[in-house]
Amino acid sequence: MSSTTYESIQFRGSPSGEVVQKTFTYDGLAPNEVIIKVTASGLCFTDVHMLRSDLVLGHEGVGIVQAVGSGCKNVKVGDRVGWGYLNSTCQTCEYCLGSDDPYCPQKEQFGVNNHDCGSLSNIAKRKEDWLFKVPPEMSDIDAAPLMCGGTTVWSPIIRNCKPFDRVGIIGIGGLGHLAIQFLRKMGCDVVVFSTDASKREEALSLGANEFHCVKGLQKDYGELGIKPIDKLLISASSKIPMGQFYPIMKPRSTIIPLSVADGDLTVPYTQHVLTGMALQGSFISPKLEQQRMLEFSARNGVHVMAEKFPMTLKGINEALEKLKNGKMRYRGVLIPEN
Amino acid sequence: MSSTTYESIQFRGSPSGEVVQKTFTYDGLAPNEVIIKVTASGLCFTDVHMLRSDLVLGHEGVGIVQAVGSGCKNVKVGDRVGWGYLNSTCQTCEYCLGSDDPYCPQKEQFGVNNHDCGSLSNIAKRKEDWLFKVPPEMSDIDAAPLMCGGTTVWSPIIRNCKPFDRVGIIGIGGLGHLAIQFLRKMGCDVVVFSTDASKREEALSLGANEFHCVKGLQKDYGELGIKPIDKLLISASSKIPMGQFYPIMKPRSTIIPLSVADGDLTVPYTQHVLTGMALQGSFISPKLEQQRMLEFSARNGVHVMAEKFPMTLKGINEALEKLKNGKMRYRGVLIPEN
Repeated sequence: MSSTTYESIQFRGSPSGEVVQKTFTYDGLAPNEVIIKVTASGLCFTDVHMLRSDLVLGHEGVGIVQAVGSGCKNVKVGDRVGWGYLNSTCQTCEYCLGSDDPYCPQKEQFGVNNHDCGSLSNIAKRKEDWLFKVPPEMSDIDAAPLMCGGTTVWSPIIRNCKPFDRVGIIGIGGLGHLAIQFLRKMGCDVVVFSTDASKREEALSLGANEFHCVKGLQKDYGELGIKPIDKLLISASSKIPMGQFYPIMKPRSTIIPLSVADGDLTVPYTQHVLTGMALQGSFISPKLEQQRMLEFSARNGVHVMAEKFPMTLKGINEALEKLKNGKMRYRGVLIPEN
Repeated sequence: MSSTTYESIQFRGSPSGEVVQKTFTYDGLAPNEVIIKVTASGLCFTDVHMLRSDLVLGHEGVGIVQAVGSGCKNVKVGDRVGWGYLNSTCQTCEYCLGSDDPYCPQKEQFGVNNHDCGSLSNIAKRKEDWLFKVPPEMSDIDAAPLMCGGTTVWSPIIRNCKPFDRVGIIGIGGLGHLAIQFLRKMGCDVVVFSTDASKREEALSLGANEFHCVKGLQKDYGELGIKPIDKLLISASSKIPMGQFYPIMKPRSTIIPLSVADGDLTVPYTQHVLTGMALQGSFISPKLEQQRMLEFSARNGVHVMAEKFPMTLKGINEALEKLKNGKMRYRGVLIPEN
């Protein structure tokens, strides 16, 4: 453990749900730890869920490495790195060895068993393990939201979708607007469904091949009379009965819900079995897939549609308000002032 | 069309649900048609569902080719062949070309759009398309139940299970007792769950590595305290809420329901998504996979536990009664008397 200490200004949740600003002095670094000067942080709906918890908010961080512990091997002072939901995994279990490391039972995770590794802070102390080098041609504002929002859509896409597939996306937001770009830049036929007709032009400009305005979640998608879909990503944030989508799904197709809700998820029993459908869950990307996502995004010019806010109490509260009201287009990014 | 005609004695469903015996004269053969002298027919629960339909019952047939139409290329007089649910597929759509031919939208199917191709008859007239040559070392009694029961479990196994997987099977019957053998003979760790303790020895003799007697379908499987499962096949014939199985499933594992029911199939929303689970539907095997199943079964000695009945009105009714009462161990096979 090095003896240097590091002063941080953190923005934390609190029991009342108010964001509070605190100063905190980090002890010196353990061999596998890194100090990063934060340069940008995305804001995800999971942060809204965490507002009443005493933790440093934010899990879409980008910054410059300021100091490294004595055992660090993969990052050095001056590197520009990003990080997301996980701080470490065990590196030895079947999930870590099998390129499924987000499912490691020993993982150290934002908001679950680590409350001090968030990115809404001028300084972050992280383990080296889940830091990702940001490609030089990628801006901080593009990089930060990829660290969680990007990885959440990237893995189900890259594991399930082929370049010749016709892929549907339900809902355009932080996740959906990245999914459109990933899919289009890998050559898919991209079909967007939204209840908001005003998003049509943006969806098409992001790369959607088709845009369908649907009237509410109970719409019978079969009435749209469209060419059936191979894979369907559900990035809307509310609980949705899956049965309504089956009329536009092909036999042997896959539905991938990306958001979570209480209670049960339901599909039509006989149709699901006899048409050989799959209902595929997905968490975030494994490390290797996250690295590949950053390379792919840099090479193919995936860009976040971001709204910038200063990383101050006022700026954070403004961004949270917009996010909670569904007005963010499409990802809020907080920038430290100094 | 050849001018020869063929007399058949058929056993058909009827509006009252009684099996009726009829004689029927088949016209001559179209170029792609084949006449087969039936030597064995399995009895599947789908036949029970079809008892009130006016159709030739049975869709697990084996027999000897008696005559072939002028255009037949793959079978000849004297061949021993088997057949199941499908009579033909289009051979040109994306499902046929993509080794997913059971999902062909033009398929001609037992009980749906072909009511005269069943196997409870002394003579069957079929298209050449979905006839399978039975390996010489395989008995009629082993071959017949593989044509539907076998193909129903084979494809989800061969598409989802690796030889190093720990695979659970819920329910031992016509499907489950074949699943145990397929999985064990490909080297899997096979775990059987049944509500019937008397099936323990049979399950182990078929190749199960573990047998767990569960008390009813609502049992909390987590209480069993067993090593978690990679893949789970549900071959029980009743409607089952999937949530009870999640305590024994590993992250990133797959649940495969093989039977159908009215209404919805439900899974726990958040757990399904965040642990990256899959709920995979499956119909019967594609042609290529069915051929491979027959070769695999002959090479590795997969045997049906069959109860034999004469293919008479009396024999069929006895077999149906036993099947309906859940007493068949594990597949009824009807044998023509002449």
